[in-house]
Amino acid sequence: MIEFSDTGALKGFGRTGQITTPHGQISTPVFMPVGTAATVKSLSPLDLESVGAQIILVNNYHLYLRPGSESIAALGGIHKFMNWTLPVLTDSGGFQVQSLGKADIALAKITQDGVEFRSHLDGGTLHFLTPELAIRSQLQIGADIIMAFDDSVPAGADYKRAETAVRRTHDWLVRCIKEWRRLYTTSFPPPKLGGGIKEGGTPALFGIIQGGEFPDLLKQSAEFVISQNLPGVAIGGAVIGSDPRQTADAIAAVRELLPKDKPLYAMGVGVRPSDLKSVIVAGADMFDCVAPTRLARAGLLYNMQSPNERIDISQNKFRLDTNPIDKDCDCSACGQFTRAYLHHLFKSRELLYYRLASIHNLRMMIRTVEYISSIK
Amino acid sequence: MIEFSDTGALKGFGRTGQITTPHGQISTPVFMPVGTAATVKSLSPLDLESVGAQIILVNNYHLYLRPGSESIAALGGIHKFMNWTLPVLTDSGGFQVQSLGKADIALAKITQDGVEFRSHLDGGTLHFLTPELAIRSQLQIGADIIMAFDDSVPAGADYKRAETAVRRTHDWLVRCIKEWRRLYTTSFPPPKLGGGIKEGGTPALFGIIQGGEFPDLLKQSAEFVISQNLPGVAIGGAVIGSDPRQTADAIAAVRELLPKDKPLYAMGVGVRPSDLKSVIVAGADMFDCVAPTRLARAGLLYNMQSPNERIDISQNKFRLDTNPIDKDCDCSACGQFTRAYLHHLFKSRELLYYRLASIHNLRMMIRTVEYISSIK
Repeated sequence: MIEFSDTGALKGFGRTGQITTPHGQISTPVFMPVGTAATVKSLSPLDLESVGAQIILVNNYHLYLRPGSESIAALGGIHKFMNWTLPVLTDSGGFQVQSLGKADIALAKITQDGVEFRSHLDGGTLHFLTPELAIRSQLQIGADIIMAFDDSVPAGADYKRAETAVRRTHDWLVRCIKEWRRLYTTSFPPPKLGGGIKEGGTPALFGIIQGGEFPDLLKQSAEFVISQNLPGVAIGGAVIGSDPRQTADAIAAVRELLPKDKPLYAMGVGVRPSDLKSVIVAGADMFDCVAPTRLARAGLLYNMQSPNERIDISQNKFRLDTNPIDKDCDCSACGQFTRAYLHHLFKSRELLYYRLASIHNLRMMIRTVEYISSIK
Repeated sequence: MIEFSDTGALKGFGRTGQITTPHGQISTPVFMPVGTAATVKSLSPLDLESVGAQIILVNNYHLYLRPGSESIAALGGIHKFMNWTLPVLTDSGGFQVQSLGKADIALAKITQDGVEFRSHLDGGTLHFLTPELAIRSQLQIGADIIMAFDDSVPAGADYKRAETAVRRTHDWLVRCIKEWRRLYTTSFPPPKLGGGIKEGGTPALFGIIQGGEFPDLLKQSAEFVISQNLPGVAIGGAVIGSDPRQTADAIAAVRELLPKDKPLYAMGVGVRPSDLKSVIVAGADMFDCVAPTRLARAGLLYNMQSPNERIDISQNKFRLDTNPIDKDCDCSACGQFTRAYLHHLFKSRELLYYRLASIHNLRMMIRTVEYISSIK
């Protein structure tokens, strides 16, 4: 179980805090790098420590399919598997199976029972993910924080679709809690669960508020999720993360209901360093996004002197540029290499590029959070 | 200019030594990792130091095309460009343009003047590489050791083809030496050459012995190359490196002619750790090969307990294997990760895999050399 304490106030509704997990403490606000398939793409655990990562997120959907949650349990849990000693959070896979359903040939079908989907790996094998299975799988992986299996409200959803998603998310939350309690009260450690979980270190379950862009649905959902008295609360759906204004509005709609002693996790924030500021000021304690590493791999590197907060390293103007990516950055890429060299590596599709670019973008995000946290 | 001293004897004709270059000393025998496009694929300079690399090889042909040798000179030379402070050797590009000529649609045409070729990057732009241009380009790159531009004897060449290549290699060597002397006696630093070259740190030119599998041609070639009294001697062509027995035979054919006070570089050795033993015992001081990193990327990891010196990490039997790649290896991949995790990363085509695999294979090669060097 985790503990959260609010250690101070920031501007707006922002706050700083501490989360205690089975694998150590996390200072909030915190940006969590995304390591989908048990690896933050191109980075080693030491690289992650060097950028200041306190916790990483891995994905239940991807790991359930490969290498399999039971395999990770058999190998001693996610921490041992990846050689990562700090906290880990698992996404439940709700968002991923939702995305499969949006493909041209729908690969997923949502029913009250759960989601039937075809694996994106082979496009063929049929799987059925239920709230119970999502919880069991996350416990097998052995994360410190696990997420409820939700029906994530897709982008542009109308009121009816959003309402259905909210009801289903609530029904599924009850089933998730039941399975989480069952697996952790029958015996410890639960049979066939990850060896990475220490006694007294029960993974914390977070419920997820849904509601799309509709304040009354968001409020209803917040009331229900908060009433379950779980260790943490998240807010999700396509409306969170894609646009900082929309994200702040959604958080604002539920703010007065939120408990002071529990962390709020805004799922899928942020694309740019400035997104973090707006979501922290709005009241979020935890956030994650694939954007920093994904943009990095596409050649887009954060730079706070640029009007759009990033430069496109593929541009020819960087060919002979001996400056670091960002003159104020303290990452190992900026400390060692020039834009000219990164431009060359990117144009040559050299593997070293992806690592350096990912280190830079993650460090810029995490440092932005560190900076905001230090403002009194 | 470099200096070489023979510091002791090994079994057979093997020896240990020291090479002094503008960027420091190298203990021989030495395996040189290949960083074709100014990066040893997937590795940072710190990674290279961690595997014990004393010198790396970069390729004149590739860098001439991208980012351009003049660009590297303008950026202060190859050391500054890559942030690599230890010695660098450039291959002249003779072997690469030779390979282009072997393509189905021949991309290169060799004449007495030089080699006309089409860039492999766009398959279109026409270039003409001469001995003079190959030297000038390598000096612009700013390596510590540069190689003569040679007509490399291809695999399966008959006597006539080998003889033509030997004559042309000798004619081109004379032109290379003339250009090398010209650029370094007119003024220092030579105009438009790399800022990475320090005064008194003239890059050393090595001549290349050719001759294919024909002992009399190899002897003729050795006599001619050695008579030029250059800082070092290399032996090249397809016959070197592909098969350890053939390589040893070719070196044996010229052994009695070789100077005691100059290093012998066997170009393109070795594919397996044991190849290094046979080439060191045959009398070579320096060698390089893309195989360790290329095999690593293909899933083939050196393991001295395996009959063929390597395991195929893609095999399903490694799925739950908690052993390191090689139980006796001291590399950072073996120190931190299991075969199960590497298997997972490889199957998922995760970028971290390529770095860990390359670190392991290079460390195994370099450690083999360190071990052989320590035998009294």
